[in-house]
Formats: sequence, C-alpha cells, structure tokens
Amino acid sequence: MWRDLHDVGRSASSGGYFRQPWTSAESELRAWFTEQALARGLDVETDGMGNQVAWWRPSEASGPAVLTGSHLDSVLDGGAYDGPLGVVSALAAVDVLRARGFSPSRPIGVSVFTEEEGSRFGLACLGSRLVTGASTWADARERRDRDGVFLGDAVAAAGLDPSTGLLSLDDVGCFVELHVEQGRDLVDRDVAVGVASEIWPHGRYRFDFEGEANHAGTTRMEDRRDPMLTYAMTALAANKQARLAGQRATFGRIEVAPNGTNAVPSRVTAWLDARCSSDEALAELVDAISRQAGERASRDETSLRVTPESVSGSVAFDPDLARDLAGIGDWPIIPTQAGHDAGILSAAGIPTAMLFVRNPTGISHSPDEHAETADCLAGVDALADTLARLAR
Amino acid sequence: MWRDLHDVGRSASSGGYFRQPWTSAESELRAWFTEQALARGLDVETDGMGNQVAWWRPSEASGPAVLTGSHLDSVLDGGAYDGPLGVVSALAAVDVLRARGFSPSRPIGVSVFTEEEGSRFGLACLGSRLVTGASTWADARERRDRDGVFLGDAVAAAGLDPSTGLLSLDDVGCFVELHVEQGRDLVDRDVAVGVASEIWPHGRYRFDFEGEANHAGTTRMEDRRDPMLTYAMTALAANKQARLAGQRATFGRIEVAPNGTNAVPSRVTAWLDARCSSDEALAELVDAISRQAGERASRDETSLRVTPESVSGSVAFDPDLARDLAGIGDWPIIPTQAGHDAGILSAAGIPTAMLFVRNPTGISHSPDEHAETADCLAGVDALADTLARLAR
Repeated sequence: MWRDLHDVGRSASSGGYFRQPWTSAESELRAWFTEQALARGLDVETDGMGNQVAWWRPSEASGPAVLTGSHLDSVLDGGAYDGPLGVVSALAAVDVLRARGFSPSRPIGVSVFTEEEGSRFGLACLGSRLVTGASTWADARERRDRDGVFLGDAVAAAGLDPSTGLLSLDDVGCFVELHVEQGRDLVDRDVAVGVASEIWPHGRYRFDFEGEANHAGTTRMEDRRDPMLTYAMTALAANKQARLAGQRATFGRIEVAPNGTNAVPSRVTAWLDARCSSDEALAELVDAISRQAGERASRDETSLRVTPESVSGSVAFDPDLARDLAGIGDWPIIPTQAGHDAGILSAAGIPTAMLFVRNPTGISHSPDEHAETADCLAGVDALADTLARLAR
Repeated sequence: MWRDLHDVGRSASSGGYFRQPWTSAESELRAWFTEQALARGLDVETDGMGNQVAWWRPSEASGPAVLTGSHLDSVLDGGAYDGPLGVVSALAAVDVLRARGFSPSRPIGVSVFTEEEGSRFGLACLGSRLVTGASTWADARERRDRDGVFLGDAVAAAGLDPSTGLLSLDDVGCFVELHVEQGRDLVDRDVAVGVASEIWPHGRYRFDFEGEANHAGTTRMEDRRDPMLTYAMTALAANKQARLAGQRATFGRIEVAPNGTNAVPSRVTAWLDARCSSDEALAELVDAISRQAGERASRDETSLRVTPESVSGSVAFDPDLARDLAGIGDWPIIPTQAGHDAGILSAAGIPTAMLFVRNPTGISHSPDEHAETADCLAGVDALADTLARLAR
C-alpha cells in the first residue's frame, strides 16, 4: 500500500507532500482508498464533502460500530506518515484480523476525514468538525483558500455535493485513531507504541500589523512606520515566552504587502500557532505575546489587530478506554500537542482513543518525518489487538 | 495626460499601481506614450525591449541630442508619480517650449526606459542597463520573475524581439530626468524644485536562512532549528545598524517555506535593501548585518547564505551641469538615496542631471505618494527652461 502512495502529491524538489483537500492529489488518494476497500470486500461510503468510511460488516455483526482511521491530506510540504499511517494501518489491521480468523461481532469502519490539517482553508479537522456538528456548512463554505477560492466552490469543483449529506456517526460506539508520534516521548521511553491521554489546547491567531508603505532608500529610518519590525520583535517574543512557560508558540506563516525589495511594507500578516498544557496557560501565553506585540507597535507607530482563527480547548480522551487499551501491550499513556480528528470526535461525546507509533527523530510536518517499518508493523498489530478487544 | 494614466494598472482595493514590465498594464502605457508622441508630431522609436524615445527633431536641429524622460513601470502597489511624472513633464515641457515659440537647435528626445524599478526581474534600471551595456541580454534573458517566467519569454510574450536591436545613445549629448522627490529635503527647504548632486550607493542582498521543518505543536522549543527566528533578529539588527550609522536598511520582501501555520519553517528567504552615503559605509553596514545574522544563525542552529543580487556604487552627477542648471532657478543641489536610470546613463559617461519636484510627505513607493499640482507645473517650467538652455 505504501508503494501506491509514494508518489501522490509529492514534490520532486523537496520530497515533501502537497496533498491539499479537493485537489487532484486528494482525488487520487480517495480513488486509491476506494480501490483498497473494494479489494477487501468492504462497503465504501463517501459523503458530500469527501469524508469516507469503508465498512467491514459481516452479517453477524450488530450494535454500535467501532470506527478507526485517520486522514490522507497533508500540510504543505509534509511527510509521508502523518495521516496515511493511520489509514494504511487500519486496512492492514483488517487483513491481520481476517488472517487470524477473527470475525467482529460489531461493525468495524475504516474512516478517512478530509482537510484534517487545515492547510488549505485554515480550519484544522474540518471534515470531522462538519460531521460532528462542531462547524456548520453554512459557515465553512464561505472560507477562502490563499488564492481566494471559496470552500464551497472547491468542493463542487472536486465533483462533490455536500447537499447529498454527510457521514452519520449515530451508530458509532467508539473511535480509535492510530498516528505517527510527532514528538520524542516514545523514543525516550524506548517503546514502539503508546496510547494518548489528552490533546493540549491549541489555537491559531492572525496578527495583522499595519504600517505605512514607503521608499526603502529615501525614507529616513526615523520617519518610518515599518510593520516588519513589529512583526520581527513579536516572532522573537513568542519564542521567548513559550520557552519561559514551557509551552509552544510558532510563527510559521507570513504574508507581506507589497513584498517588494525596495519598499517599506504597508502590512504584515502573520499567524501564531500556540499550544499549552492547559486552557489557562494558552490564554496567558497568547495574552503575553499580544501585549508585547502591542507595546512594540506603539513604539513603531504601527497598528496591531489579533484575531483568533480557531481555538480548541483541552481534550481528555476517555480515561477508562485508554487504561484498557494500554493494558493490552503495556503501552505508556502520553499526551500530545497535536490536534487530531480524534479530538473532535472525543469532544462530540464519542469514546475515543489514539495509538501512537514511535518516530525516531520526532520530526513531523516535514519531508523528514519517519517511522521504522518494524514500528509500523508493531502499530498494525497493536491496532488489530485493539479492534479485536473493542469489536469482539 | 494624468487623467489617461489614472486607472492603468491600478488596484481597486489599495489605490496603488501594479505596472510591472511586459504585462498588459505596461503595454497599455506604451500605447499611450506612442499616441501622445504622435499627437505632437514626434517620431517614436521603440526598441526590442520596449524602451522608447519620442524625437522632436526640427530640420534645423543638429548635433548631439538632449534626452529627457523617466519610466512608466511601478513597484508593486506603487504611487502615481514615481516615473510617470518625469514622462508627462517631458511631454508637457515640449508643449511649453513650442508655446514659447522655441525651436531647438539640437534634437530633443523624450525617453521611457523599461523595468526601472526591478519589481519583476529583481534588477533595477534593467532597460537603461541594457541600452548602455551595463548588463548584457545574454545574462538578463535568464532572469526569472516570481512565477518562474524567464525574462526572455516575458519580453517575447509582450510581442517584442530584442534581436531587432536596442536604442542607441551614441548621438545623445546629455540626459535630464525629472522625478518626484522621494524624501523631504525640498519640503524642509521650502522650495518646489531641486537639482541632484549624487545617488547614494545601494545594493540588494538575498539572505537565505535554512533550518528544519517540523511540527509547530509537538516539537519542543529547545529541539527546533527555526529560521524564522534568525530572520526576525536579522531584520531588527538591520534596522538598528542603519539607525546607528545614519544610513538606510530595509527588509521589505520575504518568502517562507512551507509557509504553513502549523509548521516550523524549513527556509526563510529575505531581501535586504541597503543604501549608504559612501561605498565604504555600504560595505560596512552590510558586513555588520551579515555578521550579526551569522552569529544568531549559530545560536539557532540554522544556516545563512548572503548573496549580493545587485550593488551599485556611488554616482556623482556632472557637477558643472548641476551647477549650471541650479543657476536657472536658484534651485538647491541635493543628494538622493534612490536609484534612477539617470544614474546608469551618468555612469556610462553621458553628462546627466536630475530635477526633483517637492513631495509634501516624502512618501514614495506607496499609493500615498503625492506632489501638488502647483509644484508639478513648476517642475514642467523648470524642465522647459533646462531643455531650452541645453538645446539652444
């Protein structure tokens, strides 16, 4: 299965993946998933947004379903594992269970949620948010990508029609998402698999710095109102505040107008990604960064507006489920700072768990993201054991 | 004439101009110039790059020509005056001279050089550089714009063919460029018109900061190699060094990869625009900024490469000519920190002068760039007087 996916949406120069939702790369991934599911005799359900579930539903299976899966989209220039590992492992786990002669007494679904990364329309976990009602289609359709394309138009251009309905999770009893670890907790513990305890609260905040465009050569330094300086100080302050507080803050995206070499910019827009161990710590961190940015804006005679674009509170996964699953393989229970569809389903009241597979460097959202084959196979076994326990 | 130009290449949202070379906006400006020249009975010469001269060549005129003019292209989101004021004033000065009954004893040419701002292919004064031989077509054609289009292809797509030849300046005896002032020297002196003494040396330097892409949530602050931080400190250092030295330094353009909200960037590329009162001061300033950037890169475990993209030494305009012209209207002689085609022609050995028209705010390279009508008319008179003196 990995071989099929190796080249889809891959940049020849960086080796990274550009699998943005409702592009040809994603259509190809959806077709691949459908083909894999049909080859296994699974029933494929594709909803009006492109979310998919492949159902293993033997006639003797009944009651609330066990859902497992992840996503196939990527960040810009992302790695091979974030998302696809959970989908491939879920399909492989079905193969393992069948090879063991296991037949589930509950339906098992392998799911793929769309736009998990929020790399195109800026709202992470969009597919699962819409399915669970955490976001509405009326709001979502008006979002625009970087080229100004409305989400509603992008979905239609991909040949999908949300008015045909979205997945229903009414019959889902629990959800398990397997994911490559995006840190080094399992490396430090020297184990291949872990179970998630919680997702740190996190948010995306747009910082709009406005100044005054001017000639880069003739404008005296003291006559400038340069928003690049306010931004630069803010980026350094965010890093410092996060380090002091033991939390995470990143400015990884910026847009400058007019972005010309010989012009003092009129405007800098930058996005802060912040994650903390508690909701209070997140609010304090963002406040501290915004306050320092505002003070610098006063000195630079620029202006600043901070707009939260998405803020997700802390998600604690079902503790009984986590303990139960951890007992299967004596796996450690660890937190994560990354958002996942599992967090959205958990917040919607569905008992949810996550399995992590060791990442030797901890690097993620990068072409260098990696997991050893032996660890991936250990993950498949762990997921098969988990599904067997939940669907027996 | 201003009314014709008001809407060409103008952004409805900012009110600024996007008149990049070899685009439809520039074609329209070229057609406008041709029309204006023909309406005055001038002979229009358009070369294979799009440079133009409209000749006023009465049968009795002979000897080395007097060239005057400026450019019609703009920076990204630029103002209405930078460039067009010199072209419109030159045409208006011809009208004034004719109304006075003046007939030149030397040919007078009104010139428009292309890609003066370097806003598309990164090399300022490209048209005049090619015409004077300061740059070669073999090198220039390989330059690419931000979309990866080769200059050679852009010129061809605009219906031009450099192999048909470039303007010859062999018969040009002197050049005068009128330009809106891009600072507040004339405001402070309370005069409408000034004459240029020199252009400060200036350069554009590309700073490539390389780090390691990673997940913005899960990567511990201490495990990052974030090139955005190195860049941010460099932007602040450039500002501080320029202020301390009484010079100019600006980071107005930046490109980030992958530029995603939830990813630590792998690479930040930023362009430094630096201008100083002497060649030595420029070298010192760029060295100081590069050194501080390199030190920070070591601390951030990122790497830095600095590439000079274009460096122009100091240009002193013909002092006798400047003194002679200043005497016409008791105009002050002032330096400028902005590059101009006049600097290229001067360096090529053509006696050259510049006239500046007062700018009430000093703002330039911005939609807010302005000159009062009375001052523009004073500029036309000054240019007419200048041409009369040079072509009598």
